[in-house]
Amino acid sequence: MRATFMYGAGDVRIEETPDPAIRQPTDAVVRVLRACICGSDLHPYHSLPSAPEGRPMGHEFIGVVEEVGSDVATLRRGDFVIAPFAWSDGTCEFCREGLQTSCLHGGFWGGNGIGGGQAEAVRVPLADGTLVKVPEPVDEALYPALLTLSDVYGTGHHAAIRAGVTSGDTVAVIGDGAVGLMAVLSAKQLGAERIILMGRHTVRTDLGVEFGATDVVAERGEEGIAKVRELTGGRGAAKVLEAVGHMPAYEQAVGIVRPGGVISRVGVPQYDDAAVGFASLFGPNVTLTGGPAPVRAYIEELLPAVLDGTVQPGKVFDRTVGLDEVPEGYKAMDAREALKVLVRP
Amino acid sequence: MRATFMYGAGDVRIEETPDPAIRQPTDAVVRVLRACICGSDLHPYHSLPSAPEGRPMGHEFIGVVEEVGSDVATLRRGDFVIAPFAWSDGTCEFCREGLQTSCLHGGFWGGNGIGGGQAEAVRVPLADGTLVKVPEPVDEALYPALLTLSDVYGTGHHAAIRAGVTSGDTVAVIGDGAVGLMAVLSAKQLGAERIILMGRHTVRTDLGVEFGATDVVAERGEEGIAKVRELTGGRGAAKVLEAVGHMPAYEQAVGIVRPGGVISRVGVPQYDDAAVGFASLFGPNVTLTGGPAPVRAYIEELLPAVLDGTVQPGKVFDRTVGLDEVPEGYKAMDAREALKVLVRP
Repeated sequence: MRATFMYGAGDVRIEETPDPAIRQPTDAVVRVLRACICGSDLHPYHSLPSAPEGRPMGHEFIGVVEEVGSDVATLRRGDFVIAPFAWSDGTCEFCREGLQTSCLHGGFWGGNGIGGGQAEAVRVPLADGTLVKVPEPVDEALYPALLTLSDVYGTGHHAAIRAGVTSGDTVAVIGDGAVGLMAVLSAKQLGAERIILMGRHTVRTDLGVEFGATDVVAERGEEGIAKVRELTGGRGAAKVLEAVGHMPAYEQAVGIVRPGGVISRVGVPQYDDAAVGFASLFGPNVTLTGGPAPVRAYIEELLPAVLDGTVQPGKVFDRTVGLDEVPEGYKAMDAREALKVLVRP
Repeated sequence: MRATFMYGAGDVRIEETPDPAIRQPTDAVVRVLRACICGSDLHPYHSLPSAPEGRPMGHEFIGVVEEVGSDVATLRRGDFVIAPFAWSDGTCEFCREGLQTSCLHGGFWGGNGIGGGQAEAVRVPLADGTLVKVPEPVDEALYPALLTLSDVYGTGHHAAIRAGVTSGDTVAVIGDGAVGLMAVLSAKQLGAERIILMGRHTVRTDLGVEFGATDVVAERGEEGIAKVRELTGGRGAAKVLEAVGHMPAYEQAVGIVRPGGVISRVGVPQYDDAAVGFASLFGPNVTLTGGPAPVRAYIEELLPAVLDGTVQPGKVFDRTVGLDEVPEGYKAMDAREALKVLVRP
């Protein structure tokens, strides 16, 4: 089959690779119907050191079960499934608490002999725990929306849940990428009254307004901070959802958060150390939370509104490519010509 | 009157200074019955640059109202009062939310024309908002316990509240100073099942055990981390209360916290930047919270159990000095010969 590999920064290739097959009795093999390119894929696209062996890419996919191992109890050939961006056993203490990204036996796609989602098929470990079956029939028009449950929708939701967004809240969202826009949608669903979206790409922030943003701040840095403070009577936003992961976004979050408020990060941090001392977090009793979203915990909850069209998270996809065009998809997202690229293998 | 001033690291002096008097109609003047030296006073004791003008010291005191301004409505001469370590108006949006340390019109003792508590008397701004009146008669034997409500008890309680300590929890407390011990007591009151106290001064950790610690870990650094992990089945503690403020304590907290857990800091951080990236906080979805405790918000709630002797937080005081001996009190606390020094002006 064909699959996507990254050999270094900017070096994405589609290559022939052996078809995935059951190795463990708890495995399933899933034929990929749709996959996509993630904003977080751009981090290695910028910085991955060149290597002779490629890294399998892609951690978001929906598909059809092609084969199951002998211990798989809840799935069978032909089932339509959503794969979260982390695989997990569904039974360990962390999974039972809804923190599947810390599963004691789980892991992430594209490593340790597990392929990536930007491929024709994937071997799914711990299939009973990992995959969520969608009741058939599934309208193809819903594929993009269902695919967002693999990562970006659940990740935006996680940002809002961890921040404790509730009815009447003032929320600021940093970043107008797909996760930022899903954070807007999630904050709206959780009852936020005011949602300030910080982003400077009009096409994206327009979609953010459609998802529920009440204000858009295009300014960045000190100017952006001043603008959010002005919009919030000088106080700042009680809940700040940080969906970027770069240091300037962290600094912006610290600058706009209200005393006693929460900064909830879901953008994968591209830094190790940051300001957490008296002047930044401690003095104003600001809470810093977030992390990789246990999207597996949210899929069942978010699924009904996706299936009945109440929410339309699939709108974050603004380009569709075949598998062979995936390298161009990376380029387009990196150049910000595309918000999020759907892959139809 | 006599009051305590710090002129630089290690340089604490008792000096004659004008008696405090009402300046604003919202002021009160309080005659100090008991004050004390705080672990956080040791930070400037180590690092304050020498200056020609001394800094008024002390932010914990109980006393008797001597005089009130014309706008003070809830207090009168002779009232027995507890002063929290921050003064606040009690009416702004932050005070109404219980975050009096961020009061829009409040501040801290020992600056901007406000004296410190290690003195014979103090001018208290915004007296109605700041002071908590204790119903008379107050037994002198209770003075030390009541004084802990000025800071250390409320601060330990804040650590536990912010961490969300609840019934059945496994809690680790870093630091065997007075705040650490109060964090143990508070975690116990909130229902923690297991309380691991990290500290290496037996006299203090013994008191910690009396307050509710179930395990004591004397090791520090990697060894201490390994010990706590061993005690928690390799997982770490779900709630970590950090009551020190130095970088090694932060690193210890990161090392012992369970995935999905909370680090709640109340030790005033003596650093600006710290690890918050994928490997430390983000990857395991760890929450970092805490800050200066709004002890004003907790006094009424904690007072009854102090008054009826259910809890005995006053046990953290192991030495009593007169005002003139305050410099020796600093020395004793700095040398760890005293846990917490009570001052009887």
